[in-house]
Amino acid sequence: MTEALTIKGGVTAPKGFLAGSIYCGVKEGNASKEDIALIFSESPAVAAGTFTTNQVKAAPVLVSAAHVRAGRARAIIANSGNANACTGRKGMDAARRMCGATAKALGLSMREVLVCSTGRIGVQLPIAKMEGAIADLPARLGKHSAKAAKAIMTSDSFPKETAVECEIGGKAVRIGGIAKGAGMIDPNMATMLSFITTDAVIGKGDLQKALRASVGQSFNRITVDGDMSTNDTVLALANGQAGNTRLIRGTAEFAVFQAALDRVTAGLARMIVKDGEGVSRFIDLHVTGARTEREARLAARAVANSTLVKCAWYGGDPNWGRIMDAVGYSGARIRQERIGIAYNGVPAVEGGMPSGTPASRLQAVARKKEFTITVDLGVGSGSFLIWTTDLTSKYVEFNMGE
Amino acid sequence: MTEALTIKGGVTAPKGFLAGSIYCGVKEGNASKEDIALIFSESPAVAAGTFTTNQVKAAPVLVSAAHVRAGRARAIIANSGNANACTGRKGMDAARRMCGATAKALGLSMREVLVCSTGRIGVQLPIAKMEGAIADLPARLGKHSAKAAKAIMTSDSFPKETAVECEIGGKAVRIGGIAKGAGMIDPNMATMLSFITTDAVIGKGDLQKALRASVGQSFNRITVDGDMSTNDTVLALANGQAGNTRLIRGTAEFAVFQAALDRVTAGLARMIVKDGEGVSRFIDLHVTGARTEREARLAARAVANSTLVKCAWYGGDPNWGRIMDAVGYSGARIRQERIGIAYNGVPAVEGGMPSGTPASRLQAVARKKEFTITVDLGVGSGSFLIWTTDLTSKYVEFNMGE
Repeated sequence: MTEALTIKGGVTAPKGFLAGSIYCGVKEGNASKEDIALIFSESPAVAAGTFTTNQVKAAPVLVSAAHVRAGRARAIIANSGNANACTGRKGMDAARRMCGATAKALGLSMREVLVCSTGRIGVQLPIAKMEGAIADLPARLGKHSAKAAKAIMTSDSFPKETAVECEIGGKAVRIGGIAKGAGMIDPNMATMLSFITTDAVIGKGDLQKALRASVGQSFNRITVDGDMSTNDTVLALANGQAGNTRLIRGTAEFAVFQAALDRVTAGLARMIVKDGEGVSRFIDLHVTGARTEREARLAARAVANSTLVKCAWYGGDPNWGRIMDAVGYSGARIRQERIGIAYNGVPAVEGGMPSGTPASRLQAVARKKEFTITVDLGVGSGSFLIWTTDLTSKYVEFNMGE
Repeated sequence: MTEALTIKGGVTAPKGFLAGSIYCGVKEGNASKEDIALIFSESPAVAAGTFTTNQVKAAPVLVSAAHVRAGRARAIIANSGNANACTGRKGMDAARRMCGATAKALGLSMREVLVCSTGRIGVQLPIAKMEGAIADLPARLGKHSAKAAKAIMTSDSFPKETAVECEIGGKAVRIGGIAKGAGMIDPNMATMLSFITTDAVIGKGDLQKALRASVGQSFNRITVDGDMSTNDTVLALANGQAGNTRLIRGTAEFAVFQAALDRVTAGLARMIVKDGEGVSRFIDLHVTGARTEREARLAARAVANSTLVKCAWYGGDPNWGRIMDAVGYSGARIRQERIGIAYNGVPAVEGGMPSGTPASRLQAVARKKEFTITVDLGVGSGSFLIWTTDLTSKYVEFNMGE
C-alpha cells in the first residue's frame, strides 16, 4: 500500500474544488477579518457529514444534517462570529436563507448547499446583510483554501489546512481539508468545524462510512460522544474528478483512501489541539491494557479532562498521583496493583506504586513542550489514544468574560 | 419539630468527646503545623462511615472501612501531609500501626480505632516517628476541637468546625463535626475528610443510615459517586451520653436528629466549597424540571464542572450559552425550547432563547460574591442542588506544581 504524500492546497487541492471568502461584518466591530467562507465543487458531488451529539443543536447543524441525508451537495457556506444557536425558528429561517442565497449565487438547488456557523450563542444572524455578501462570493472563488480557512477562525491563532495525494489504481486521488479550532483544549464546548474535499470516485454511503471511521480516529480523540458543542460539524464532499475506479469498502483501494483520509483528519485534529487557548504543552496520552477499548477511553478521558492533572502538566510537574486518582474514578475497571505509568517511556509507577525513578528524570520529560504519557492498566488488551493539553492561567483569563 | 440550635465546641461539644493534636513532622519542612489529630469518646460508642468510591483507595480507607463494619469505635486518628495512598502492603501496615499505637495509648482494642490520612500520594508514612507522637497524644486530649480541625488541614485556609444541639424527648442531644477541605472546588481529586460526633443514643445501623442520607444532602452535593479522591472519608461516632430514648428510624425523634445532623454536614460542606483554592465566587446551582432526580444531577454536574462555565463565573460574566451547552451534553434528556435559566430569579433564558433581560441586570447578579442560578429543564419534576464555585487563575497557579 502506497503511503499518501502531503501536498499543498488544502480544500482546493483536489480537482474541481474552489474556495473563497468575504468580509460581511457578522460580528460587529471586527472590520478587518473576513467572516464568510465558501467551498464549491465545479461538478456534482456526494456529501457526508458527522454532527454534534449535543441535544442543544444550532440551526445550521439541523439544516446541514437534513441536506447531507439527501446525499448530494456541491457547496459549503460557513460564517464565523455568530453560532446561530439558541435562536429558535428565526435562526432556522436564517440558516435556510444562507443556503438559499448560496444556491442562487451558484445556480444550485438549496439542498446542494451545506451550512455552518460558529461564534456567539443566542444572537440572531444579520441575515439580510449576509445575503448581500453571499451574492458577491462566486466572483471571489479560486484556489483560495487558506483564505477560507482564515474566514472560519474564531479564537484560533492560525488557519488550519492540509492535503494529501495517494495513488489508487494508477490514478492520483487527492483529499484536502480545513478546520477551525475549539480555541480550547477539548472542543466539548466550543465549536469545531472541519471541511474535507476529495476528487475520489466514491458512493455517498461509503464516503459517510469512511468519514465516520476517520473522525473516530481523529476529532473524536480530542472530544467524545455526548460532549460536543452545539455546532460541531465535519463535512466531506467527493466530486469524482480523479477518475479512479469507484471505491468500495473492503477493497485494498478503499484502505488506501481511508488511510489518506485519516491522515488529513488526524493532521487537522492535532492542529486544533495545539492551537488551544493558552496551551503550553501537548500530550499524547495512551491508555493500554484496559479490559476493553471503551474502558480505555473512559480512563483516557478522565485523565485528559482532570483539572488537577492539567494544572500539573502546565507546571511541568510529573504528578502521577493525580493520574492514578483520575483512573480510579474513571469508570474503567482496574486493579490498583497492576497499574503502570510512564513519561516518554520512563517509568513513574510500577505495580501501582512509585517506580523509584529519580524525580529529576521524570521532570525532564514533563517540562518538554510535547511528550507521551502511557498508562498501562494491566488487566486486558483495550487501548485508546487521546491528544490533549495542559490548562493554563492564560486559558482561564481568556475565558473569563467578554 | 424543634429546630436545632447552633452551638460552639465542634466535635467536643457532645458529652464525653475529647480531641487533641500534636506536631510530628509527617511532611518534612513544615515544623510549625500540627499534623496528627485524635478524637476520643470517653465511653463506648457506635461508628458509621462513608468512604470514597474511587477504585484507587488509600490504605487508611481500607482499614477504617473494615473497622466501621465491626460497628463500634471510640477513637479517630488522622494525619495531614501524607495520604498513605499508592503505598502497597507497607502502607497497609502503616495504617494498622497508626490504629495500634492509638489503641495502646488509650487502652482500646485496635478495632476501636478509625484512621484517616490526607496529603501527598505515593510516599510512605514515617510511621516509627508517628508512633512516638501518638503515644504522647492522650495527655493532650481536652475540649480541643478547633486544634484537631487545624491539624487535619492541608491547603485549607481556615479550620472547619460546627456543632448543633436539639431536643429529643426532653433530652438535649448534641452533634459536632470538623472537616478538611478539598482545597478545590470539587473534592473529586483532593481529599475531603469529615468527623462527626454525637452523644445521641442510636444503634449502629440507624447511625449508618442517618449518616449516608446526610452525606447525600451535603458532601455529595459538592462531589459525586465515582468521582472522589483516594482518601475521602466521613466518619461518625455516637456514644449515647445524652441519655435520650434510643432513636429509631421512622419516628419523629429520628427526624429531629436527622435534620440536626443534616445541618452539621451541610454547614461543613459549604465551608469546604467556600474555602476552595483560589475561589472568588460561590454559586447555588439548582436544576429543576428534569425528568428524574438522577437527570437533574447529571445536568447540574455538567454545568458545575464545565471549565468554560466556571471561567465565565470568575469573570462575573452571565454567559448562559455555556450553561445551555453543558446541559445539552450532560446526558439529561432535554427539550431545548423548554429550558429556562435565571440568575437570582432574573430570567436570562426563556423557552431556550434569550429572555430579553438587559445584559446589565444579569451582570449585576453575576458579579456578586454569592448568587443562585436556576436551570429549569421544563420536562418533569426532578431537581438537584449543587454548591459550586468559579475557576480562577489563582487556582491554576496553585495547582501547577510543587
